[in-house]
Amino acid sequence: MSLPKSIKIYEVGPREGFQIEDGPISTGDKVELINKLNHTGISSIEVTSFVSPKWVPKMADAEKVLHLMEKKPNVEYRTVYLNINGLRRALNNNVTIDGVLLLTASNTFSKRNTNKSIQKTLYDLKDWITVYKESGLKVDQLALMAAFGCNFEGNITLPQTVNIIQNAMSIAEENNEKIRKIKLADTMGWANPQQIKRTINIVKENWPEIEIILHLHDTRGLGLANAYAAMEEGVREFETAIGGLGGCPFAAVKGAAGNIATEDLVFMCEEMGIDTSIDLEGLLECTKFAEEIVGHRLPAHLTTGGMFSDVRQSKWINQEKIYYNKIRWENNDGF
Amino acid sequence: MSLPKSIKIYEVGPREGFQIEDGPISTGDKVELINKLNHTGISSIEVTSFVSPKWVPKMADAEKVLHLMEKKPNVEYRTVYLNINGLRRALNNNVTIDGVLLLTASNTFSKRNTNKSIQKTLYDLKDWITVYKESGLKVDQLALMAAFGCNFEGNITLPQTVNIIQNAMSIAEENNEKIRKIKLADTMGWANPQQIKRTINIVKENWPEIEIILHLHDTRGLGLANAYAAMEEGVREFETAIGGLGGCPFAAVKGAAGNIATEDLVFMCEEMGIDTSIDLEGLLECTKFAEEIVGHRLPAHLTTGGMFSDVRQSKWINQEKIYYNKIRWENNDGF
Repeated sequence: MSLPKSIKIYEVGPREGFQIEDGPISTGDKVELINKLNHTGISSIEVTSFVSPKWVPKMADAEKVLHLMEKKPNVEYRTVYLNINGLRRALNNNVTIDGVLLLTASNTFSKRNTNKSIQKTLYDLKDWITVYKESGLKVDQLALMAAFGCNFEGNITLPQTVNIIQNAMSIAEENNEKIRKIKLADTMGWANPQQIKRTINIVKENWPEIEIILHLHDTRGLGLANAYAAMEEGVREFETAIGGLGGCPFAAVKGAAGNIATEDLVFMCEEMGIDTSIDLEGLLECTKFAEEIVGHRLPAHLTTGGMFSDVRQSKWINQEKIYYNKIRWENNDGF
Repeated sequence: MSLPKSIKIYEVGPREGFQIEDGPISTGDKVELINKLNHTGISSIEVTSFVSPKWVPKMADAEKVLHLMEKKPNVEYRTVYLNINGLRRALNNNVTIDGVLLLTASNTFSKRNTNKSIQKTLYDLKDWITVYKESGLKVDQLALMAAFGCNFEGNITLPQTVNIIQNAMSIAEENNEKIRKIKLADTMGWANPQQIKRTINIVKENWPEIEIILHLHDTRGLGLANAYAAMEEGVREFETAIGGLGGCPFAAVKGAAGNIATEDLVFMCEEMGIDTSIDLEGLLECTKFAEEIVGHRLPAHLTTGGMFSDVRQSKWINQEKIYYNKIRWENNDGF
C-alpha cells in the first residue's frame, strides 16, 4: 500500500506530557505552551484532563487553563476524562468532545489505571452511552489502551485485542450507535512494526469502514518505525506530544522516552512528502519552551539532530551548527 | 516483500564509537569492551582504524588493541583504513579484510573526510584494486558514504548515488573484478524510510545479484524506521554500534544520536521473530560498560525502556523496575 498524502496529528503534550513531570507546572506555563502550539498549524490540542484533583493534582487547574488560553477557530481543543463526572466537566467547558468509549486490553492495567476490570468496563459502557446521548453527542469512537502489550501482563495478543473491540462494538450497536473510529494506544511502548501492521490489517478485515488513530510511545525506540509501518497500511491519524513529552519523571538522562515526538513524526512525514500542515520551525520553538518549563532536555531527536532545511538554505555554513559537524567529521575516519 | 528470517549484524562501536568521544579512552578499556562483545554472539566486530595517528590520535593504539584482545574463532574482526598505508597495516595484523572500494556520494564530504574529490577517488580505484590483488584479495565490495544526504551539500539524489555506483562497477569490471556487495552508509543521518526503499529497489533493479549492507545513523530519530523499511525490502545486513555509540562529542544530553544502537535493532528484530543470534542481556551489559568508559549515558533506548523478557518472566513485579511503572501509571490519567 502506498503512503498517505497527508496525515492528521493530535497534539497531546500539554495533557499527557506534564502530568508525568516531577515538579509543579504553573498554569501560566501551560497556557503559554498551548498559545504557542496554536500558531504551528496543529489542528487538535489535548489541553488538560478532567480527572480527580486528589489523584492527579497537576490537572487541578483544568478549568483555569481552558479559561486563560487563547482559542483559535481552526483548532480543536480536547480533554481527557475517565469517568462521567469528568465528562460533565468537559461538557461545561466548551471543548471538542468525541463520543468515545474507553477500554483497556490488559485487565491488570485496567484495574490500576481506572479501578475497574475489563468486564466491569464493558458492563458500564451503556451508562456512558446514555450520558453521551443525553448530552446530544453521538457515540462513534473506541479508545483501547495497552492495545499492544502491558508492563504488568506482558504481551497482549491479537485475539485479545479483537475480542474486546468486538464486545464494545456489539454494545454500541445494541444501543443504536455506530463506531467509526478506533484509537489504539501503545500505552507502555510494547508494539513492534510487524505487530502494528497485523493489528491494523485484522481490524480492517473485521471492520472495513473503521478509521484508526494510533497513540504511540517511544519507550523502547520503536515509535517512529511503528508510525511508518502504520502509514504503510494507510493509517492517517496519530497522537503525538511536543518534544516527546510524557517521558519518565526521573528526567531525560535516566528516563525512558515518552510519546513519540510531534516534531520527529512531522519531520519524517515531510521528508517523505506526506503533508502534515504543521510548521516544523514553530514546533521546535514550542519544544524549546517546553524544555524550559520542565527544566530538562526532552527526548525528541530533531532538537539535537538539526533540520535539513537549515542545510538546504545554507544556514549552517560557517555557523555554530556546521562547526559541530566539522569537528565531528574532521576527527572521524569514515562512515 | 516479507521480512527476512534472520539478519547479520556488524558491530562497529569500538571503532566508530570511541573516535567521537571527548576524553581519552584507554587501550585496556577498548580491549575489555571487545572481550565482552565477544561473548554476545556477535559475529563481526570492527575493532579499530588503521588511520594516521596524527589526524586520529584515538586510534594510535590500533596494533596494541589487536594484540591484547581475545580473538574467538567464530568472530570476524574488522578494521577501517582509508588509504593504502592503512590497508598494509591491516594486512600485517591478521584481521578480516574485505576487498572493498571506498566511495563518497558527496563531493564536499569526500574532500573533507578523505582529502579527495569523487573524481579523484574513482580515478584511484585501480590502484586499490592492484594492491588488493597483490595481497591475494578479491575485490568484491563497494562502500558508499553519505549515500542519502550530506550536512554540507544537502540532498544526495538517487541518480547521483546510482551514477557513482555505476562508475565504480565499471572500473571493477575493467579490472576483472566482480562486485557482490554494496554498503550504503547514511553517514550524517539523512535517510528516510521511503528513500531507503527507493534506493534499495533501484540498486536491485540495476544489479539484481547484489547484496546490500546498511550503515545507519539515528541523528534525527529515523534510524530504526529506516532499518525496518530496509528489512521489508529484503536487506539482511546492518552495521550498528553498541549503545548507539558514535554520537556527538558533547555527550548524550546535548548531543545528537550516533549509529543506530545494536541492542535497539536486535530488540526490534527479536520482537518480530527475526533471528540475530545475539544475546540481548549480554549486549546490555556491554552498553553499561561502554557508558562507564565514556562517562555519560549513551542514546540507546533499550537501556532505559527495559526489555519485555523481564516482564514476561515476572522479573519486574515488586522490584524497582515495576516501581517505575507504578509511579508512572498511578499518577497517570489514561493513555
